[in-house]
Amino acid sequence: MDKKKIGIIGATGYTGSELVRLLVAHPQVSISIITSESKAGQLFSDIHPQYRGIADIELQPLSALADADVDLVFLALPHGVSMDFVRRQGYDRFKVVDLSGDFRLGSADLYEQWYHAKHEYPQGLTDAVYGLPELFREQIRPARLVANPGCYPTSALLPLAPLVRQGLLRPDTIIVDAKSGVTGAGARARQTTHYPDLNDNFAAYGIRTHRHTPEIQHTLAALTGTAPAVLFTPHLLPVNRGILSTTYSVPSSPVDEAGLRDLYRQFYASEPFVRLVDTPPSIKNVRGSNYCDIFVTCDDRTGTIITVSVIDNLVKGAAGQAVQNMNLMFGWEETAGLLTPPLAP
Amino acid sequence: MDKKKIGIIGATGYTGSELVRLLVAHPQVSISIITSESKAGQLFSDIHPQYRGIADIELQPLSALADADVDLVFLALPHGVSMDFVRRQGYDRFKVVDLSGDFRLGSADLYEQWYHAKHEYPQGLTDAVYGLPELFREQIRPARLVANPGCYPTSALLPLAPLVRQGLLRPDTIIVDAKSGVTGAGARARQTTHYPDLNDNFAAYGIRTHRHTPEIQHTLAALTGTAPAVLFTPHLLPVNRGILSTTYSVPSSPVDEAGLRDLYRQFYASEPFVRLVDTPPSIKNVRGSNYCDIFVTCDDRTGTIITVSVIDNLVKGAAGQAVQNMNLMFGWEETAGLLTPPLAP
Amino acid sequence: MDKKKIGIIGATGYTGSELVRLLVAHPQVSISIITSESKAGQLFSDIHPQYRGIADIELQPLSALADADVDLVFLALPHGVSMDFVRRQGYDRFKVVDLSGDFRLGSADLYEQWYHAKHEYPQGLTDAVYGLPELFREQIRPARLVANPGCYPTSALLPLAPLVRQGLLRPDTIIVDAKSGVTGAGARARQTTHYPDLNDNFAAYGIRTHRHTPEIQHTLAALTGTAPAVLFTPHLLPVNRGILSTTYSVPSSPVDEAGLRDLYRQFYASEPFVRLVDTPPSIKNVRGSNYCDIFVTCDDRTGTIITVSVIDNLVKGAAGQAVQNMNLMFGWEETAGLLTPPLAP
Amino acid sequence: MDKKKIGIIGATGYTGSELVRLLVAHPQVSISIITSESKAGQLFSDIHPQYRGIADIELQPLSALADADVDLVFLALPHGVSMDFVRRQGYDRFKVVDLSGDFRLGSADLYEQWYHAKHEYPQGLTDAVYGLPELFREQIRPARLVANPGCYPTSALLPLAPLVRQGLLRPDTIIVDAKSGVTGAGARARQTTHYPDLNDNFAAYGIRTHRHTPEIQHTLAALTGTAPAVLFTPHLLPVNRGILSTTYSVPSSPVDEAGLRDLYRQFYASEPFVRLVDTPPSIKNVRGSNYCDIFVTCDDRTGTIITVSVIDNLVKGAAGQAVQNMNLMFGWEETAGLLTPPLAP
Repeated sequence: MDKKKIGIIGATGYTGSELVRLLVAHPQVSISIITSESKAGQLFSDIHPQYRGIADIELQPLSALADADVDLVFLALPHGVSMDFVRRQGYDRFKVVDLSGDFRLGSADLYEQWYHAKHEYPQGLTDAVYGLPELFREQIRPARLVANPGCYPTSALLPLAPLVRQGLLRPDTIIVDAKSGVTGAGARARQTTHYPDLNDNFAAYGIRTHRHTPEIQHTLAALTGTAPAVLFTPHLLPVNRGILSTTYSVPSSPVDEAGLRDLYRQFYASEPFVRLVDTPPSIKNVRGSNYCDIFVTCDDRTGTIITVSVIDNLVKGAAGQAVQNMNLMFGWEETAGLLTPPLAP
Repeated sequence: MDKKKIGIIGATGYTGSELVRLLVAHPQVSISIITSESKAGQLFSDIHPQYRGIADIELQPLSALADADVDLVFLALPHGVSMDFVRRQGYDRFKVVDLSGDFRLGSADLYEQWYHAKHEYPQGLTDAVYGLPELFREQIRPARLVANPGCYPTSALLPLAPLVRQGLLRPDTIIVDAKSGVTGAGARARQTTHYPDLNDNFAAYGIRTHRHTPEIQHTLAALTGTAPAVLFTPHLLPVNRGILSTTYSVPSSPVDEAGLRDLYRQFYASEPFVRLVDTPPSIKNVRGSNYCDIFVTCDDRTGTIITVSVIDNLVKGAAGQAVQNMNLMFGWEETAGLLTPPLAP
Repeated sequence: MDKKKIGIIGATGYTGSELVRLLVAHPQVSISIITSESKAGQLFSDIHPQYRGIADIELQPLSALADADVDLVFLALPHGVSMDFVRRQGYDRFKVVDLSGDFRLGSADLYEQWYHAKHEYPQGLTDAVYGLPELFREQIRPARLVANPGCYPTSALLPLAPLVRQGLLRPDTIIVDAKSGVTGAGARARQTTHYPDLNDNFAAYGIRTHRHTPEIQHTLAALTGTAPAVLFTPHLLPVNRGILSTTYSVPSSPVDEAGLRDLYRQFYASEPFVRLVDTPPSIKNVRGSNYCDIFVTCDDRTGTIITVSVIDNLVKGAAGQAVQNMNLMFGWEETAGLLTPPLAP
Repeated sequence: MDKKKIGIIGATGYTGSELVRLLVAHPQVSISIITSESKAGQLFSDIHPQYRGIADIELQPLSALADADVDLVFLALPHGVSMDFVRRQGYDRFKVVDLSGDFRLGSADLYEQWYHAKHEYPQGLTDAVYGLPELFREQIRPARLVANPGCYPTSALLPLAPLVRQGLLRPDTIIVDAKSGVTGAGARARQTTHYPDLNDNFAAYGIRTHRHTPEIQHTLAALTGTAPAVLFTPHLLPVNRGILSTTYSVPSSPVDEAGLRDLYRQFYASEPFVRLVDTPPSIKNVRGSNYCDIFVTCDDRTGTIITVSVIDNLVKGAAGQAVQNMNLMFGWEETAGLLTPPLAP
């Protein structure tokens, strides 16, 4: 079988590193090119020494992509830079899975409102398919440009989708109280990621203003036409990987726990990466894997539906989901290369 | 000046250890007796080696209390055991500050409903004053029996009290999404506190059923006569000390952020241990101290009031608040022995 | 191709869990039986929830092994219990890889001296091959009973072997200052593994008396006939996985760094799991993998050779090495099932 | 009583922050001025928010020192900058305790050899007293310029001093295998202190070349005239505070454990901050305090003396020792302001 040739654009961050981890073990692909403007000429394993002997691949400047033979590229670039890449390179010569936030929102207006910058390639917004396979699988298969979801939105949308698509919720605000590991902040050191400031510590951040808010709300609306407002509060956990999201929503008519669990079981019956659990899940149970574990319950006393979900922010929240999208776009088994068990503890 | 003589009943847990840390530095007290049934005869510093040379005090069996000269005892006992102590010993011979949950709820019925056990000393429930000085200072001063608040309730009540006492909230459910360090689970090892199960991990627990739920709700109701229902979801953080609580509530009429901040500033104007902060607080900023840092904001888009508060669960959430109550009960400066700065990082 | 049938005896600990993680991804084996006396009847994934949907295998009592069709069993049992299993079951019906310490030492006397118990099956000591493939590959291939090395000895022997086999060292004491993650202490909670006692903390333990001391010393002696005394000091790190060992030894004649590096490069030239590194290695670079990264240098000022090595204690220090031994015993590619990249961060 | 007036030069780092923590609780001093070139005009509590309400002191530029009334200044500056301050300002107008490495080594030559820079004020090297009170108390009392010891040297010298001063050791190399928390690397974020690179990780660094090596060796030599060579290997622990040093040395004639313990007991009989312990110490037992806990044993099998010691690198390893020196320089009780118990867990 001919392997598909893959390019990874942007190799120094955690997303690029995770893509390599998954792709070197994927039976149907070979990595053609990995680019990095700042580290071109060095080996990928110089930057990420865990790959010594595994991926001693020389990093190329982006200009080398012109001569490379690639069927699909993953963009592991900062937002804004991704947009620029897509505007210049298009998605005719190769399929594109973009892991930035640049093509996730439904309109240039929404983008500008939350990203405080003009969108430079609105056509991409129109063409892009939102790459959450559990909700948009059929649209993803033929897509040329896939906007890979944000880590927080993935962790919030999967537990909320059954409720919203079923029209079960009152139009009250849905609250998403999310807690993320530090790799979500990227591989580059900043004062906010200084070890002594985070170790044995915990705090909220981005209250009211985090850019994943419209992504969650917009996608829920896409499931039904209308949808409740979403209030999203992220917190920074002293862990490397993992997001746990706790959601609170109000049913439009009384529900019971058994009914809720049935709904979820049916909704996710044939999903390979969603696991419904009977006790609140731990992030360690999905570490390094593409699973999303979901718990749902109903508090009769206050009439509130509570869900708790966990993902690995770098896998189901980024690189793993990107590979899942790639598998769909090439018509392969959706789980190819993604069934490595979680690493716990 | 004659120092008051203090007994600590139950010395092997974290609460007992913290009481000693604060009391050895308190200028107006001396420790007369520390009891432990299981470790009697050993030194306190054998159990807690950080106190070697500081508190090499021999632990006594509880029976030794009969001959001890004490003005006040702190009960650092499990719930149920505290109740039994109070039933037998009363609070005539000495004042009592109980750090268990036994005397915090308003009625024996409520106790039985959440603790699934009969209350053995309802008279204590009637006599006990809830020891949250910021809200019940005047009742605490003359009290003989003080029920020291739970750690989670302290972290939830202080940010919610201004809203509730002012009658600002709609009768919608108040959501308290709380995250606690592991010392909240006690000093005794259990499978749920095994290091590899918690390190680099995070999970929710006690969803819908945690015993601090009625304590929060009952106390809010005491502020107004009526109060909204409270939904409380605790999570276990991979940190030693600290609780961060994020609350969500809905105002009955539109509020703005400036107005909210004014309200809080007035409400807590003369409180030595409440610090209002302009950015979301970190638990490290209160570590080892009796402070509660509170942030309040309003999300206009969804019409929700959000508060974030942090305390050290072993200090303001337990031993520090107990000492604050003792200071009030003896008519001393409320801050005596409690002004040690936080330890960060 | 017919897959070989594997039994895992003892499934509740970390070693059993890691064996399953590696074996479900191994192309040439199928798991026939997993036993647990205490959890028989439950699913493996009930005990280790990360395997839900991956290894929902019912646990059997040991008695079920009599009827099982197995080609090789891994013993993930406490020491003493392993010995008893081997004495009763032998290693004729199936090959055995024992992950306990029961068959690692060269003589019953040495065992009794360090384990303070009589060895119940000295014949096994004679028959067993010490399963460190890099040093004893040819003896492992035909073996029926392999004693899988301890985690600390693996981390110490690989960096010391080139020096000792070459006869480079003076008969001065070799010092091994080792630091291990907490999973080395097992999956069962104990007071010494209580989260608040370990988090943000560090200590030495087992000074002068740790049972891995004779294992290191005895194995070094086996390389040369004579060998220096070994002083081994373990410490407990606040991390889940990983051992870093720093060794200090004195060359019998002057060496230089270039010469040392050449020696190591030649010694490990064709080893798939030993990686020589030019800067001191981090345990994260081998997390979840079977690699051992080794750094060697010489301090001319004091005339001391320093090595620093890292392994994942549960993989190269236990389950991964056991699978490597299995591959040799079945005549397979030594790396089969073991090439998953490390998980970092 | 008139309080002495104190200046803190350099306020943004951890050392400056710890000095304030200790000095606000010290009964005999008042802080006259805190300087910061980069943050002048801001409040100290803006930079270190744990001090809100405790030390809302406006930061001054260094130039403001000219008009300030100060009896003693602490220099919490980078090395090189400290030297420059002392060269310009001298130590006539005020006493100086320098917390950098600039005046710790015995000669300008030694400084240049290890710091790779010329020493700009050799007179200071001559005048400075090495501020380790347990060894040099009488020289510190009258000193005008005290070089506060490095954190690693403090942790190594206290356990080694009894052996060296007694002349007990063979001239073999003394090995100091040290492990430090991350605050030792300073408050400024760098790539090497990025949270995901350190959490759940461990590594050695500075092998053979760390600048604390000559400080340890030079000070040991000062105790006897001659002294063994010292090999010092630091490692970076995933903890905030604390250093644990394990040392290995060889006695010149046989020793037994009882004799060693007697020696240490006599040597440190009247030291308020040295605690001899019978089991290997944990860094948590000294967290936030000025104690150094020391364990000593002898391995008869290999003829090696092993010591394990722990300090808080920011207290006994920096700010606490500086305050201890100040107490001596002013003729006060040496423990003034330093008896706050450790914070554990």
